[in-house]
Amino acid sequence: MARIEPRILKGFRDYLPGQMIPRERMLDTVKRVFERYGFAPLATPALEYSEILLGKYGEEGEKLLYRFRDNGDRDVSLRYDLTVPLARVIGQYGELDKPLKRYQIAPVWRAEKPARGRFREFVQCDIDIVGVESMLADAECVLVGCDVLEALGVSRFEIRINNRKILDALMATLGVEQHERKMAILRSVDKLPKIGEAAVRQLLVEQDGLSAASAETVCRFVAATDREALGAVRELVGDHRAGQAGLEELGQLLSVIDAAGRTSEVKLDLSIARGLDYYTGTIYETFLLDLPDFGSVMSGGRYDTLMQMFSGQSHPAVGISLGVDRLFAGLSELGLVREEASATQVLIALFDDGDLFVGDSLAYALRVAGELRRAGIATELPLAAGKLKKQFKYADRRAIPFVVIAGPDERAAELVTVKDLRHGSQESIPRAEL
Amino acid sequence: MARIEPRILKGFRDYLPGQMIPRERMLDTVKRVFERYGFAPLATPALEYSEILLGKYGEEGEKLLYRFRDNGDRDVSLRYDLTVPLARVIGQYGELDKPLKRYQIAPVWRAEKPARGRFREFVQCDIDIVGVESMLADAECVLVGCDVLEALGVSRFEIRINNRKILDALMATLGVEQHERKMAILRSVDKLPKIGEAAVRQLLVEQDGLSAASAETVCRFVAATDREALGAVRELVGDHRAGQAGLEELGQLLSVIDAAGRTSEVKLDLSIARGLDYYTGTIYETFLLDLPDFGSVMSGGRYDTLMQMFSGQSHPAVGISLGVDRLFAGLSELGLVREEASATQVLIALFDDGDLFVGDSLAYALRVAGELRRAGIATELPLAAGKLKKQFKYADRRAIPFVVIAGPDERAAELVTVKDLRHGSQESIPRAEL
Repeated sequence: MARIEPRILKGFRDYLPGQMIPRERMLDTVKRVFERYGFAPLATPALEYSEILLGKYGEEGEKLLYRFRDNGDRDVSLRYDLTVPLARVIGQYGELDKPLKRYQIAPVWRAEKPARGRFREFVQCDIDIVGVESMLADAECVLVGCDVLEALGVSRFEIRINNRKILDALMATLGVEQHERKMAILRSVDKLPKIGEAAVRQLLVEQDGLSAASAETVCRFVAATDREALGAVRELVGDHRAGQAGLEELGQLLSVIDAAGRTSEVKLDLSIARGLDYYTGTIYETFLLDLPDFGSVMSGGRYDTLMQMFSGQSHPAVGISLGVDRLFAGLSELGLVREEASATQVLIALFDDGDLFVGDSLAYALRVAGELRRAGIATELPLAAGKLKKQFKYADRRAIPFVVIAGPDERAAELVTVKDLRHGSQESIPRAEL
Repeated sequence: MARIEPRILKGFRDYLPGQMIPRERMLDTVKRVFERYGFAPLATPALEYSEILLGKYGEEGEKLLYRFRDNGDRDVSLRYDLTVPLARVIGQYGELDKPLKRYQIAPVWRAEKPARGRFREFVQCDIDIVGVESMLADAECVLVGCDVLEALGVSRFEIRINNRKILDALMATLGVEQHERKMAILRSVDKLPKIGEAAVRQLLVEQDGLSAASAETVCRFVAATDREALGAVRELVGDHRAGQAGLEELGQLLSVIDAAGRTSEVKLDLSIARGLDYYTGTIYETFLLDLPDFGSVMSGGRYDTLMQMFSGQSHPAVGISLGVDRLFAGLSELGLVREEASATQVLIALFDDGDLFVGDSLAYALRVAGELRRAGIATELPLAAGKLKKQFKYADRRAIPFVVIAGPDERAAELVTVKDLRHGSQESIPRAEL
């Protein structure tokens, strides 16, 4: 067999155990919070008919699809997010009981230009609530988000909210009505935290064709933050009907947030626009205050019309999506992740007296290991018998805190000797008390 | 927007919450067992360069790859299993500490002809030990397998083991030396439990070109089971060197299994062959004794040369793979899976006195919900306020066992009323004692 160079595709990553152990722990924490709110898991395939995904992500997004013909010449694509597959599910299984509160944690694929922190395969972690019009649902997504971050040890964060209907009212005052043009302007506004106001203003004029005065109006409007922003909104909205609805929704959403005691973590921010086509109401982004340039780690919003494309029926829906890899990188920068070479707690030292497979040493060590494992303690046996010194070195390298010695003397007395490698202490105890 | 028919690709599946809740619980149990043995998680991408995967699965397997050209015209494929990507990782990261004990639970894709129980996307759940020559590693994989099945509630199962080196000795007595021909014969033998002895004999003669006498030798040899099989092996092996090594390995493996008290669950079965090219020693298959026609739910073996293709260096390796979907189907048939509409334990009834977003009811309900959730209790608020009766119906439909009433009277007295829907009882208690 010829040797093949072991290499990975650009924009893709391997996660070795040192990173995966804390990453899995993070995801377990996240799942536990979701489940406490009554969200249930749901899974969809990685591959979909391309027509299911097309027309949902805008022109820019669509170019990033991993789209190909399968062995049966079907036009298929790897999923781009978890929201559109959910919309398909809702359309396909009319019998699904609503409200549906589901979570899904799964990889998605986008053929982006690889860059620092930008990958072609990354894990999304979404919760969505389908079948609820009330702002209680929008608020629940925000509250789950707050609880998730706190459960992960993040104390300083801000979820910034806005409402597309208010941005619609803004578009109306600018005389912009065509959907594609609106979306282009929103995508420009969405770049504000990344490229700054001057560059956004330039984009609005040169790329999106707004007058200098209109670009000024946009920038001034979206600069208003939090409570004072409500005044700016009320003034702008006037008698624009969608705008009025958006204002009322924002008010209700904020009242639930306040009632739940999350006033200081949740702020109104009129510059939040989100690039995706399908949002219709509330939109959110989340920032880590101790990493101001880090970008959003959790975002989402309400999309009341997306489901209609598949079901013919209207299903109100709202959701929030956690950027798992980005958040994990953030937690690392904040010192909230401990890399671990191993999660093993005990190594059982093995005595190789002659033929390992014949003597009684192995049987005794296996019995002790079995008992520890049944008690839920992560326990390893050295898999290549060798000198005790080598075994201790292994435990040391993996930061395994305890070595249990179950040699011939111990076996005879039904004892084990426990060595605590961190404190250098040691103790012999009856096996039954281990 | 035009309506799109919501449909899923043939051979792919959605998992709705009713199935996903017990499925996730099953995977959590499996992971816990892996971790107790000191296995650590590792993740690789879904997409690999095709050259990484080609030449590993035999001609039949290779045809099933989802292979295409990506946007950068690279020849890429969706992973076919988790073993070859692991071999790439070992070759690529020379610094990885050995022995490496890793687990990975992830989907794989094979463009099989869809059939009952056969899918194009399915989740594999693998453990592998890299860097250990000793049969202790092969035994550990078997022991983990036994513990996994027991932890899932399966009491009657059998792991059947064999060794490729012994099958090599068999091939030598038949005068078959060419690798592709050996593999073809092994694949025919591997079909024994599915198609029966007569059909296998026919395949061996008509497809694989063995004489009737040779086909008879094969069938007689592989029919010997468990302890008496060792006699048949010893007789066959004679002075065939690889065969002798295989016999010694089998003996050591069985001695560890016996020492660990798993004699009755682990049997020698010379008809176990496995279809994949890369096995070099121990091979396993696992059967549920109460579902005799169900096929293997967990299989694997030793593959000491696969790593060499990527690293240039020899790395002994052994692993076992759990067929998650198949096992889940088996557990369902055995009545060991409880479908659940929801994992929620408490629904908090919501009083809609006038404007929900203005009164104090919501704030009180949110406070109670927050306290329950922080105590780890899965708690829902009804997201569309409505009559109490409707809320109770919702709890009933989802089999939520408790409804907590936190209405105006309760609020005034800092009480809550807890209704147990299964026993029809109810009790008012101070909020602090909830």
